[in-house]
Order: sequence, then C-alpha cells, then structure tokens
Amino acid sequence: MAGAQFSAETSDGGAFVRQPNRFAGRVTPHSTAPPGGGPDEQDRWPLEPGRYRLVWCRACPWAHRALIVRNLLGLTDAISLGTVDPIRDDRGWRFALDPDGFDPVLGINYLSEAYLATDPDYTGRVTVPALVDTRTGRVVTNDYPQLTLDLSTEWRRLHAPGAPDLYPVELRPEMDALMAEIHRDVNNGVYRCGFATSQQAYDEAFEALFTRLDALSQRLAGRRYLMGDSITEADVRLFTTLVRFDVAYHGHFKCNRQKLTELPVLWAYARDLFQTPGFGETVDFDHIKRHYYATHGEINPTGIVPLGPDLHGWTTPHGRG
Amino acid sequence: MAGAQFSAETSDGGAFVRQPNRFAGRVTPHSTAPPGGGPDEQDRWPLEPGRYRLVWCRACPWAHRALIVRNLLGLTDAISLGTVDPIRDDRGWRFALDPDGFDPVLGINYLSEAYLATDPDYTGRVTVPALVDTRTGRVVTNDYPQLTLDLSTEWRRLHAPGAPDLYPVELRPEMDALMAEIHRDVNNGVYRCGFATSQQAYDEAFEALFTRLDALSQRLAGRRYLMGDSITEADVRLFTTLVRFDVAYHGHFKCNRQKLTELPVLWAYARDLFQTPGFGETVDFDHIKRHYYATHGEINPTGIVPLGPDLHGWTTPHGRG
Repeated sequence: MAGAQFSAETSDGGAFVRQPNRFAGRVTPHSTAPPGGGPDEQDRWPLEPGRYRLVWCRACPWAHRALIVRNLLGLTDAISLGTVDPIRDDRGWRFALDPDGFDPVLGINYLSEAYLATDPDYTGRVTVPALVDTRTGRVVTNDYPQLTLDLSTEWRRLHAPGAPDLYPVELRPEMDALMAEIHRDVNNGVYRCGFATSQQAYDEAFEALFTRLDALSQRLAGRRYLMGDSITEADVRLFTTLVRFDVAYHGHFKCNRQKLTELPVLWAYARDLFQTPGFGETVDFDHIKRHYYATHGEINPTGIVPLGPDLHGWTTPHGRG
Repeated sequence: MAGAQFSAETSDGGAFVRQPNRFAGRVTPHSTAPPGGGPDEQDRWPLEPGRYRLVWCRACPWAHRALIVRNLLGLTDAISLGTVDPIRDDRGWRFALDPDGFDPVLGINYLSEAYLATDPDYTGRVTVPALVDTRTGRVVTNDYPQLTLDLSTEWRRLHAPGAPDLYPVELRPEMDALMAEIHRDVNNGVYRCGFATSQQAYDEAFEALFTRLDALSQRLAGRRYLMGDSITEADVRLFTTLVRFDVAYHGHFKCNRQKLTELPVLWAYARDLFQTPGFGETVDFDHIKRHYYATHGEINPTGIVPLGPDLHGWTTPHGRG
C-alpha cells in the first residue's frame, strides 16, 4: 500500500509510479520441495494447509482482495490471518491490534521484520498483503495480483466444496485484459490522482479514471457481474476500490467528478457485492478512513479524519440480479 | 477571507478563530461631513454615487455577499467594482486581473496598499470585501456584515426603482437571530471544519454544521425563502456558502456528511437562487476552486485543484416557488 515513500515513487513529471513487488514466491502443488521444506529452485513452496499466514491491513485495497478471495474459496482454515494496524509508525506496518503488539503466530511486532528476515538488504516500502511462511518466518510473496490468482488455481485442492471458480480458464484472455485496464485506470488510478504532484499528472489520471468508470458503468448496465452471471476475480478487484471511493478517494485523492453514490450502475453493483457473503463483512470503513487520512501527511498535514460520508446506503436494496 | 495567517487564528484547542474586522466606517446620509469630505467624527462617510469602490474576490463568500446585494438593489452604477485575483501571492490580494496589475481607479497593485494608507501600523490579514474611498484611497470598511446591511438601509436613496427590501424592519429581530446561527454554524462553520488543527475541534464544527443544515432544510421545506415569500439578506448569506459547498467545502474542508446535491431541500433552494437574476451570474466556480485549493498550503500542500465536481445540475429545474 502506497504512501510512506511518496517522493521515491514520483516521476519527474509529478506522476505516481508504484514500486515493483519484491517477493514473488508461489505456493503450488507443483513444488518439488518436500513437505515442510521449500522453496524449490524455482521459488515454489509446497501447498500445505495451515502453514502460511496472510498478513493484511483492513484499510488496504490490495490486501483486501486477498482476504475476499480467501473467504470466497473457503480457504479460511487453510490460511491464517495476521492483521496490522491501519496506522503505520516510522517503522511501518505493525501488529498493534494484537496483545502486546506481537503477531501471536509469527512472533514479530512489525511486518518489516519478516521482510528483513527474507532479504536483509531490503530497503523498499514494506507492503501488504504478504504471505508469510510460519515455519521459517520468511515472506513467500507480496506480489498481490499473482497471489489471488494462485489462490484460485494452485490452491484448488484445499478449496471448500462448491467453491466458485473466480478465474475460469475460458474467460482468462478477456479477464486479463479487463483487469489490466481496471488496475491502470481505477485500482492504481485513484492513487495516481491522489499522489500526483503536478496538475497535469493529476488531470491525466482523473480523466483516465472517470472515462474507465463510465465504460464499466456501460458494461455493468447489461450484466450483473463484470464477466456475466458469476462473480470472478475481476469483480473482487473492482470492488475493493469502489468500496473505498466515497470514504477516501473522492475527497482525499480528489477523485471528485461524482461520488460512487452518484454513479447509479456502479453504486448498485457495489452494493450488490457488499451484500454478498465474503464481501461486506470484510469491510472496515473506520480503518479505511483512518489509514488514508491519518498517514498521508504529504496530502493531509493535519491528519484530521472526516466524519463523513453517511454510509447507510450500503445496506439498501440494490435492485440487481 | 481566511487562510493567510492560519496559525495566528488558531486557538490552543486547535479551533479556527477568525480575526475581528479592522475598519468599520459607514457610508450614510446622516454623515455630517461635507460632500467630498469625511469621515465625520463618528467615522461616517457621506453618501455619494460613484465615490466608493467595492473591492472583492469572486472566490470569497464574504465579498460575494456584497456583490449580490449591490446587484439586487440596483447599486451597480453607484458603486464601482475592483476585482482581485483569486490567488494571493506573498503580499496578499492583488489586482492581477487588470492591465499591468493595477486597479485602474485606485491605482494600486495590492489591496494591502489601501489598508496601509488607512492604517500604517496594520499587521492583520488583509481581507475582502473592502469598501474604498476613491478620493483618498482609504478603506472605509472591511466590516462585511455591516456593509451589506448598510447597502440595504443607508444607501436607500440610491437604490433602483422597485428594489427589494432585503432587511425589512419588522423581520429584523428574527432575521438577526437566524443570520447569527447561520454565520456561526455554516458561513464560518465550514472554515472551522477546514482550519481545525485538532480532531475534536473539527468534530464539533462538523456536528454543528450539519445539525444546522438539517434545521435549515426543515425550515425551507415549508417556505420558498428563509423569511417567507421574498428574498432577504439571510438568503444571500446562506447562498454564498451553499454555492461553494460541493466545489470547495465538501472535499477541501472535509464537510462531507453529504454533498449539497444530496440534501434535496437545500439543493433545490440553492438552485432556485442561482437561477434568480443577481445571483448565478456572479458565481465563478473556477475562481472559487483555484482560490481554495491553491492557496491553503497548510491543508493542500500540493496545490492541485480538483477537476470535479460535475456542475451541470445548477441549471436544472428546481421545482420551487
């Protein structure tokens, strides 16, 4: 999740350029490592229930994806959860919500400890989500787009009976293209609006964002979900940005052509997902607001957290499906 | 208009406390000064058409009141206008919109020159509106609430035929009380939200603001204008804040329980006024946005001006009256 190294991720033109993800290990049944071992020479870790811990922050849209996918697939027993506080201190993400500030499984105060245990020379921004191996305390991956796809595909053996297929083989070409557009213009687009340090970089990000939201509105006017009648990974990815739109991006990131509540199709679509098991119960508007407004001193120096917006609309009938 | 001396107008509790107005001269037919002279020993200036110049900024709600009242009363020939740029530099409000940056009547680059010509020891924030005597270059008044009431009462001899009575004698007790509430909770209340430096000061201002807006919605549900069937000064004062609400206060000042467009009665009421001659043509959304977002570095360090909100709704039918 962005913010701590604002200037290091800003181009000469004032545009926000997100750092690459550092760790890209994969948990897969194809690992050649023995049970309890790993990774193999291709950085593949063995698939084992209960072995890996997903570290997330309720505020973070990238981490939120992993939580929703884990829940939808019924991987809640297979993958344990560590939850960091929405407010970072000068050492970054911390387990301040746990007794004595320690993650009870990993035994660390800061997520950075797991990063440095994996790469002692790491100097980039420490990000969530991170999948951590509880046997060695090493970070398997912080590559959030691959992580959720792997939960759908490589972890299939551990899915709950009747789990949905969030990444159907026959839809992948169209989905991959669609998710790339959503990532560029929406998921990361809101950050490009908010972290722009030049008017031109902001203007370009804003136009791309709302042009894309208009296109998505059109698409969703004729179908319940992005890929048709069933929820897919694409919906999860769009949802985690939409659910943060009015509480954070509209004001804090200046994504203010309209509120989500003023975009009828997207607003109904977002409520539909919010009211679907696996989605709404993972949303914490308080954590979201406090994270964004209290930790980006470069765009909100007072750190004051708005009392609005009124959120009662999320539970109203959506009229879709 | 606030902002330049943020810290000097902040209480120990983090609340914004607006400075008092420095100049409180009054133009009145009761002045004992001879024509062309003044002020008399009670700081009363003679009422003379064409003599005084109203310096305003299109962005500023306090100055905007004076412009609307002047227009509604038909005092456009009697009082000339000087318009400062919405962006102050380190010397404050400047006549950057005029050729060579000089006000063509006052012959000054900065409004501060008139302030210092009147009080060489003045060190406070230079504010608009200011009524300036073109004969001497001195500031008659920057006391905005008295200024507009005087336009209604002391300037009556110069009103256009058929000018409305914006401050009817029989309504004054109720109007004065209502305008005081609107000032505290709404006109200045949005600044108290935006310039708060503590969460508690912000929370209190926010609650007072929206509680008051709810009460005003109730009042206006049963009558076209605040005092009944006719526009009064109270409507002018509420309008200049409402018209800035979504473009500035909602995001920039964190007044975000709802947008104005989400408050049905107030939104229709504001559109009704906007579409009334004397109101809408004095609104400059571009100046408003640039002023607020570009000149309050303490709450918007990047100075980036949002491209939103969509403003087309202002000219849609209001269904009132």
